[in-house]
Amino acid sequence: MTRVHNFNAGPAALPLPALERARDELVDFQGTGMSIMEHSHRGKTYEAVHHEAGALLRTLLGISDDYAVLFLQGGASQQFAMVPMNLLRPDQSADYVLTGVWSEKALSEAKLVGKARTAATTAVDGRYTRVPKQSELELDPAAAYVHLTSNNTIFGTQWPAFPSTGEVPAVCDMSSDILSRRFDVSRFGLIYAGAQKNLGPSGLVVVIVRKDLVAAGRKDIPKIFRYATHAENDSLYNTPPTFAIYLLRNVLLWTESLGGLAAIEEQNRKKGELLYGAIDRLASFYRCPVERESRSLMNVVYRLPSEELEAKFVSEATKAGLVGLKGHRSVGGIRASLYNAVSLEDVSALVSFMESFAAKNG
Amino acid sequence: MTRVHNFNAGPAALPLPALERARDELVDFQGTGMSIMEHSHRGKTYEAVHHEAGALLRTLLGISDDYAVLFLQGGASQQFAMVPMNLLRPDQSADYVLTGVWSEKALSEAKLVGKARTAATTAVDGRYTRVPKQSELELDPAAAYVHLTSNNTIFGTQWPAFPSTGEVPAVCDMSSDILSRRFDVSRFGLIYAGAQKNLGPSGLVVVIVRKDLVAAGRKDIPKIFRYATHAENDSLYNTPPTFAIYLLRNVLLWTESLGGLAAIEEQNRKKGELLYGAIDRLASFYRCPVERESRSLMNVVYRLPSEELEAKFVSEATKAGLVGLKGHRSVGGIRASLYNAVSLEDVSALVSFMESFAAKNG
Repeated sequence: MTRVHNFNAGPAALPLPALERARDELVDFQGTGMSIMEHSHRGKTYEAVHHEAGALLRTLLGISDDYAVLFLQGGASQQFAMVPMNLLRPDQSADYVLTGVWSEKALSEAKLVGKARTAATTAVDGRYTRVPKQSELELDPAAAYVHLTSNNTIFGTQWPAFPSTGEVPAVCDMSSDILSRRFDVSRFGLIYAGAQKNLGPSGLVVVIVRKDLVAAGRKDIPKIFRYATHAENDSLYNTPPTFAIYLLRNVLLWTESLGGLAAIEEQNRKKGELLYGAIDRLASFYRCPVERESRSLMNVVYRLPSEELEAKFVSEATKAGLVGLKGHRSVGGIRASLYNAVSLEDVSALVSFMESFAAKNG
Repeated sequence: MTRVHNFNAGPAALPLPALERARDELVDFQGTGMSIMEHSHRGKTYEAVHHEAGALLRTLLGISDDYAVLFLQGGASQQFAMVPMNLLRPDQSADYVLTGVWSEKALSEAKLVGKARTAATTAVDGRYTRVPKQSELELDPAAAYVHLTSNNTIFGTQWPAFPSTGEVPAVCDMSSDILSRRFDVSRFGLIYAGAQKNLGPSGLVVVIVRKDLVAAGRKDIPKIFRYATHAENDSLYNTPPTFAIYLLRNVLLWTESLGGLAAIEEQNRKKGELLYGAIDRLASFYRCPVERESRSLMNVVYRLPSEELEAKFVSEATKAGLVGLKGHRSVGGIRASLYNAVSLEDVSALVSFMESFAAKNG
């Protein structure tokens, strides 16, 4: 069995130990004579996994008891709607900071629910090459919340540090960089993250939300969409995606075994230095369109001298076992996603390939 | 490895060949060097699985091109809200036929969205022991739709044949008996089914909906909740639960290999005869509270002479490798769920245990 170097943007590479564990116990979980998928979500066996996943996430991210940790379905895309449905009252407005396609989608869903405005945007001709400075945010001090996107998978930008939102709760879509670096959860009112980058498989979204915001949430929406419903029922109001939560547990155990977020952050910094270093060193051939201060450590986007060369690069890389390097269809170019499960060795292999490709085609 | 006899109500037993296949290719799907979970949902490898699952479902259920088949998240509980959000206009009312806890929940979510009324109920003191007769339905001919629940997991009832709803589209929650017997899809406007009984793992809900109802659906709701969004994007608008859909594919291949729905129906009929036959034969000890015509072939509920004996029954059965037999906490008693992956041999083992237990304790 040969595993490839997987640079997919999501669903993406998962840690091999987490997958191997799932394989080894797939038809008989811990001697129970059935798969974890076949266990009742109301039984002790599954509940232990469910609670372990929540406890590991609390420890790894340093989440205090002021927050509920919810395991929901529908991905970040459903949170684009659920956030305003819960937190935006008819007499209020919400602020959105636009830094890419996903924040634009979040804003347009919010506008179908209530009043929402753009508090900042760094778009130039529909493209984003940086996140805004604090001074560029035109925040409404009466806003229900300020919505941010921590990392932008398509344009390859990331907030190096999070801006202040004053007294207004910050809501942050961290789908593509949660668990990749240390940050202070207590600066946020609500954090959501689709699992399929650093947390696990698709089909699961984690919501970390301050309990006072849960309690103040709107009650005139269907029960299934209220954060309160899920918080009161420990994410067991309806049947959760049990296998996805089990895999999250496996991934979190692996994350912990590496040394937690400080160790992961250090490894991600090294991976970024290696790849951006190669792009900058081979600047006559590769070019990163993102401003240096906003460069993402999760999604490294770069261009080659022509679209023809980009197509050739992707094709030859795939043959060499380096997959998932094609940029998003809306922007083209190359994109290497360096989520936690992508190793320094994977990045080294990519850099070697890039050096060789530039030498042959430059 | 010893597999137990799994009578869980859902998540429930899955066919061993479907699980073994998942295990064997978990870390390397078809020589691609990665798990199916690590593949992009926009890539050819995953898309082939996605389309195969849809095509198999169309073939097995005989779904015509007049219907869209959608793979969504949030389970049947989310459909309780999405159905009225899409299909119920402010000037309309919807009819609900109450046959158990799940239809009650569907009605109460609908009431948070728009106008909905009870068209029939068979509840007596909060309990249901049968489904209504056609003559008991007080249908509103102007209703947006009539909502039915085909099988009731908690009370162990099932419609032996579906009632007529006239010109009004029938919407049916088939979570707990889809794929268990033949039926005419064209009699329904919309069918939904959480996967975790006969289709696959939890975290996936299948929606089969007439295309004219999709087109007429409301547009003033968030895009993520519109059936039209998912129909137009082949259930790839946002990242689908790829591993759950892959497992659905495996389960459907197994279903097909058995001979499709006619063969499955025949097997389910035999399983039901065997278990209900034992209950009726041992009538001095076991008692099924459900009226004969409404007895479910999926969830067989029965009582013992006392709650103490019921607790002893569950405990000794578990030790004998017969698991998941405890009735729902809201009604007590015994419940044996006989979904498709439960074999005639599993049911025989249960009947032998019941005979022996009655002889010792009767």
